[in-house]
Amino acid sequence: MKHKFSHYTCSICGTEYDPDEVTYTCPKDGGNLDVILDYSALKKDFSPRRFMELPEASLWRYRNLLPVDDPGKIGTPLHRAGWTPVYQPQRLAQKLGLLSLWIKDESPNPTASFKDRASAIVVARAIQIGAEVTVAASTGNAGAALAGMAAAAGTKAVIFAPKTAPAAKIAQLIVFGAKVLLVDGNYDQAFDLSIEATHQFGWYNRNTGFNPFTAEGKKTAAFEIWEQVIRSLPPNSKPLTIFIPVGDGNIISGVHKGFKDLHALGWLEQMPRIIGVQSEGSAAIANAFQRGDEDIQPVQATTLADSISVDLPRDGVRAVRTARETGGTYITVPDQAILGAIAELGRVGIFAEPAAAAAYAGLVSAVEKSIVMSDDPVLVLSTGSGLKDINAVMQRIPQAPVIEPTLDAVKKVLK
Amino acid sequence: MKHKFSHYTCSICGTEYDPDEVTYTCPKDGGNLDVILDYSALKKDFSPRRFMELPEASLWRYRNLLPVDDPGKIGTPLHRAGWTPVYQPQRLAQKLGLLSLWIKDESPNPTASFKDRASAIVVARAIQIGAEVTVAASTGNAGAALAGMAAAAGTKAVIFAPKTAPAAKIAQLIVFGAKVLLVDGNYDQAFDLSIEATHQFGWYNRNTGFNPFTAEGKKTAAFEIWEQVIRSLPPNSKPLTIFIPVGDGNIISGVHKGFKDLHALGWLEQMPRIIGVQSEGSAAIANAFQRGDEDIQPVQATTLADSISVDLPRDGVRAVRTARETGGTYITVPDQAILGAIAELGRVGIFAEPAAAAAYAGLVSAVEKSIVMSDDPVLVLSTGSGLKDINAVMQRIPQAPVIEPTLDAVKKVLK
Repeated sequence: MKHKFSHYTCSICGTEYDPDEVTYTCPKDGGNLDVILDYSALKKDFSPRRFMELPEASLWRYRNLLPVDDPGKIGTPLHRAGWTPVYQPQRLAQKLGLLSLWIKDESPNPTASFKDRASAIVVARAIQIGAEVTVAASTGNAGAALAGMAAAAGTKAVIFAPKTAPAAKIAQLIVFGAKVLLVDGNYDQAFDLSIEATHQFGWYNRNTGFNPFTAEGKKTAAFEIWEQVIRSLPPNSKPLTIFIPVGDGNIISGVHKGFKDLHALGWLEQMPRIIGVQSEGSAAIANAFQRGDEDIQPVQATTLADSISVDLPRDGVRAVRTARETGGTYITVPDQAILGAIAELGRVGIFAEPAAAAAYAGLVSAVEKSIVMSDDPVLVLSTGSGLKDINAVMQRIPQAPVIEPTLDAVKKVLK
Repeated sequence: MKHKFSHYTCSICGTEYDPDEVTYTCPKDGGNLDVILDYSALKKDFSPRRFMELPEASLWRYRNLLPVDDPGKIGTPLHRAGWTPVYQPQRLAQKLGLLSLWIKDESPNPTASFKDRASAIVVARAIQIGAEVTVAASTGNAGAALAGMAAAAGTKAVIFAPKTAPAAKIAQLIVFGAKVLLVDGNYDQAFDLSIEATHQFGWYNRNTGFNPFTAEGKKTAAFEIWEQVIRSLPPNSKPLTIFIPVGDGNIISGVHKGFKDLHALGWLEQMPRIIGVQSEGSAAIANAFQRGDEDIQPVQATTLADSISVDLPRDGVRAVRTARETGGTYITVPDQAILGAIAELGRVGIFAEPAAAAAYAGLVSAVEKSIVMSDDPVLVLSTGSGLKDINAVMQRIPQAPVIEPTLDAVKKVLK
């Protein structure tokens, strides 16, 4: 089988593997594998200008830098993942005293979250290796994204979720036609069972922090940030500072991978500074970063930001390194600040889910602590739509007044 | 004040009004007003090719055919409304025996529904006429769209909703910073009170079937269908048949208006055939069409498709005419068929809200009744995301099985 990448490298021990030698994590130490492209060949064949010639409004505009074949599902939601808008909310920039602020909004993705990027690439990989069923353990956006992308491609998806998962999240999976198995256990048991079943039935497993291709999907956000923002920064600009919400660590690692690809190709002069934001109640990776090591200790996660509520992050090592290697840092925010960020973003017309708003809350905190200065160009990655988790906000916002249907009542309330 | 349109024409009595003469409906009979452009001037200045040169991925690419100034809120969600994708779901086309099927998916709009088109244009109009507050009576997508677009533009929104409106829908309005007034009464009382308050406080009113500019926003979907689909139909093709979900009748009238604009400019040879789809439980407009008159009799609406559940449609006359004048018709579908359509669309990766799925259910029925033949090119307008109304599906889908965390349990369930 011909592959569009050179080899895998274990992120822990550095061992290199041929494309056909392994499928998921490092056989020696279980480390996450980096997918390494053939940069010298790519350098010869492609140039940044090539992308500008591809009018495709999806992540497939970067097909030449992806390790999978484009499955060619033109005209389906699979071919609409990615290429999300960047907003420039002037009022928020002014309030924070920043000269340049961008918010990249992932809500227009087909299943309304960033995770469509990973699932599109994993489903493409499944098609390429002839796997008929793709499986994931997920309670949230990753499961919905896999179910949606598999449906778009006409392949099968199986989702393992703890039986305590909210019914609203399960409903979306079922609408997409996924086979949903509610496991009488916690997320870790669902995760382990999905891997056992993968081996038993010859399925292909999408689990985050396990399948090396999720990060290859997530890296496309870096390509877009480069094309939409970085390339138009003035020549002597400070590097872009990027705020990313962090749960299991795979999004921040994936975005970092994208910039590393661009750097290896010689297309990116200045690496952006990447800052991870975690909820105070789910801060396993931030804890390791602050201690200065890569030893990810599990926590008992408690935060309203469901998508970044993680006891044991599965991609923590690479996530710690992203901040360290780019001159970034980790910031933790309380739930109260996340709720405040939802309201701030709402006031400029962006309805973010709590995890997505956490990144903005991290920026607010970074400005207060002078981690970000007024001349730092800043981008916040808003990873999903508030419609995904409306219950999280519902009980926590002010009640609207009930009035009699009279003008007098209106006047009274408006006073 | 200079206006970008020629005059208004009452859709009932045909009286013409100068742009500065009226604001909402016809002073004589309350009829909805059509906004008439200066087609001969436009013909001289513009050509279809001009649009292809505007790379803007929003409805503002059609700014020359809009009766409002572009408010210039570049880099905000206001400038991202519209320019939604069209999918070509092969499996659904095959199942229905159709040669060409497109589904235009409105979910990627900033507040995840078609209504952003109307609200973007109304907010632009409010800015143009110097109105500081825009108001609407709405329990659903229209209110969310107004709240979102007003927030994006930095203007104020007031929403009147019956106090029985679901808390999840109210939450979104509050996140966008709208002033929400819960009226102790039904929708009609909220509607009337919003108009009283409009006059009293000098606000600008967005109400559907009242403000003539909502249809001007909705017409942009017709422009996109023309650019994305109609222009690439083969020369001897039958006209495109378009299925549109109908509640108060303003979407179907607005889309019709867009095609009438293009026809008046000489850019559209063959008018598409437009078919309205209503829920059996909310069929006031379909009833009038079937009787062959324009007398819209109120009903007691009962349907799970919240966005098209309307007792007294406010834009019924133009909605009846759309089907009549384009060689279309009206189709009614039971809630059971709407649920079936949600599942069908889900299987190709499109998660539609019930009202949106109703349009697809209408197509299924039209194929059964030979209203649509295999060589009819067909487009279905899917007006909003299923995430908007997840409760509607939740109680009606099959339960997922709960299993012990063992491989044996997985095997048993998969058998």
